[in-house]
Amino acid sequence: MKTSRYEEAGVNIDKANALVEAIKPIVTSTYKRGVLTEIGGFSGLFALDTDQYKEPVLVSSTDGVGTKIKIAIMANRHDTIGIDLVAMCVNDIVVCGATPLFFLDYFSTGVLENDVAQAVISGIANGCKQAGCALIGGETAEMPGLYRAGEYDLAGFTVGVVERSKIIDGSEIGVGNVLIGIASSGIHSNGYSLVRKIFFEELGLGVADEIPGLDGVTVAEELLRPTKIYVPIVLHLLKASAPIKGIVHITGGGFFDNIPRILPASCKAVVRKGTWPIPPIFEFLQEKGSISEEEMFRTFNCGIGMILIVPEQDAKDVLFQIQAMDEDAFPIGYIDPRRDDEPQVVLEDI
Amino acid sequence: MKTSRYEEAGVNIDKANALVEAIKPIVTSTYKRGVLTEIGGFSGLFALDTDQYKEPVLVSSTDGVGTKIKIAIMANRHDTIGIDLVAMCVNDIVVCGATPLFFLDYFSTGVLENDVAQAVISGIANGCKQAGCALIGGETAEMPGLYRAGEYDLAGFTVGVVERSKIIDGSEIGVGNVLIGIASSGIHSNGYSLVRKIFFEELGLGVADEIPGLDGVTVAEELLRPTKIYVPIVLHLLKASAPIKGIVHITGGGFFDNIPRILPASCKAVVRKGTWPIPPIFEFLQEKGSISEEEMFRTFNCGIGMILIVPEQDAKDVLFQIQAMDEDAFPIGYIDPRRDDEPQVVLEDI
Repeated sequence: MKTSRYEEAGVNIDKANALVEAIKPIVTSTYKRGVLTEIGGFSGLFALDTDQYKEPVLVSSTDGVGTKIKIAIMANRHDTIGIDLVAMCVNDIVVCGATPLFFLDYFSTGVLENDVAQAVISGIANGCKQAGCALIGGETAEMPGLYRAGEYDLAGFTVGVVERSKIIDGSEIGVGNVLIGIASSGIHSNGYSLVRKIFFEELGLGVADEIPGLDGVTVAEELLRPTKIYVPIVLHLLKASAPIKGIVHITGGGFFDNIPRILPASCKAVVRKGTWPIPPIFEFLQEKGSISEEEMFRTFNCGIGMILIVPEQDAKDVLFQIQAMDEDAFPIGYIDPRRDDEPQVVLEDI
Repeated sequence: MKTSRYEEAGVNIDKANALVEAIKPIVTSTYKRGVLTEIGGFSGLFALDTDQYKEPVLVSSTDGVGTKIKIAIMANRHDTIGIDLVAMCVNDIVVCGATPLFFLDYFSTGVLENDVAQAVISGIANGCKQAGCALIGGETAEMPGLYRAGEYDLAGFTVGVVERSKIIDGSEIGVGNVLIGIASSGIHSNGYSLVRKIFFEELGLGVADEIPGLDGVTVAEELLRPTKIYVPIVLHLLKASAPIKGIVHITGGGFFDNIPRILPASCKAVVRKGTWPIPPIFEFLQEKGSISEEEMFRTFNCGIGMILIVPEQDAKDVLFQIQAMDEDAFPIGYIDPRRDDEPQVVLEDI
């Protein structure tokens, strides 16, 4: 068959169509009640169950995985970066109490490699299953001239729903409330430009090298650990009517930028260092990268990926419920009154 | 102030925060009833008006603008590419009859330039206003090492709603129905890798050059014409109870790949060439690029950006209604019976 002019320009529609066929079973494996269409139409359709909601509020978020994607490319391991993509989005919507409904992905690359794309989308489907949302759409863009050979970028979008009266917005946070930190699975997906600078430029390590002092864990293993998806934990607690006043996703900006997003102006969060174990990777980064403590907590999750704020008298019970799900959680601080000239987040030594 | 280690690694959180402040008034100008939050939380919230819908179906789409983005970068003109981004998404959801509710954008770049980002987001807000949807979220990612200096990529995501019984899915398309084509505003946002190859590699033109034979129009002007947003036209017709059986967005894959998406297997679409004026840019591309007619209709919109399929007896009235909105529309073909061995889209000379 004659090569088309569009193909000569670097875009192969047939290959893209073959990809759509190949990922169909992966994508449909995420479907759940509400999904109305198969992949391939102009859009994804999802029927909202209006019996369940008196005043349904749609909650949506978009995110990428930052330059963690460069690690996946360097290590040529593409099957988990999709989990990160889903995690970054769904963790942003579950903090207001929303149940994720569906997800869409945007995958753009210089030259479409179907095996890479398929691995990425398998990871996305895996993440969607963990979060209980359906992958109902996506765009695969072949953009010769924008991305270098072998490189790609990812964006994710999710929509969830919450009953209006049950939105968790932090407005009920009060003095004396306790901060419960739920463990992270590693660096998650923030701060990777700094991580890469330290590992590759300054320490001269390669992705296959073991990280000194980390028990034989390789750079690729540690840096590609998928971001934890907190949706099942949070929704389980909410279903059990846990009295959660606020939830914080420790995403870009760490403790200092994220906790204030939901904190009333009259409150400050006192985070007590030493109340949870800092995973070795963060100590390694701080030491080798000569990063100040302040910057560590402004850039990384430092071992805590999500914080629940609960009344003091309920803290033990919530901790117990989380631990009963085999998850690590710790009382990491408390809410104090705040004057206008004080910061909203304070680190305290114990 | 001491430069942070994260900043040394190429990521500037303060600059990103300054951008968020700068775009706030632009973003909030798109707000409408239903929007519950200001920008800055973990997510965007939108209250669904359940009184208006018995069985609300959420319709969502994600898309990018392909390498049209390279033209914006080459021409250093960033204020309209956001219109394209919105158009590509909302045109995909309005085809099933959905009213767009909200939009989110993902903007990733090598080094954040706030004036560029602000221009891009102004374009997105402009597009959102045209489509009647609120810009309720977005992500700006600074990814040194993935994008070249001065380059960026965009992904968009929209959610709309349609009453389940009113979904337009093409299943009621019947033999004898008429194809009404609504004019495009230009190349829209597909086929740009080929367009760039022809203009820049083969013809050696620059973005500031006039296109030979196109009345003094420059390359940048023609190639950056914003994609038409068909939402107001389609929603106006649906509100007036126009009996529309199917709607096709002529997006990537042109006539040949898009019309079949909604066509029953027993039908074929006969597109009658010469029933509408092919804009000069497409004739220029076909001639200078030595592109076959088949490939033109598989890659470009060739002057028709959206097709409505209506019963023959209603065609005149629908045409009249569209023209009354000062839009160009033409009866460009009809639906014929199809045998299993026949193609779904046929070009016919008049």
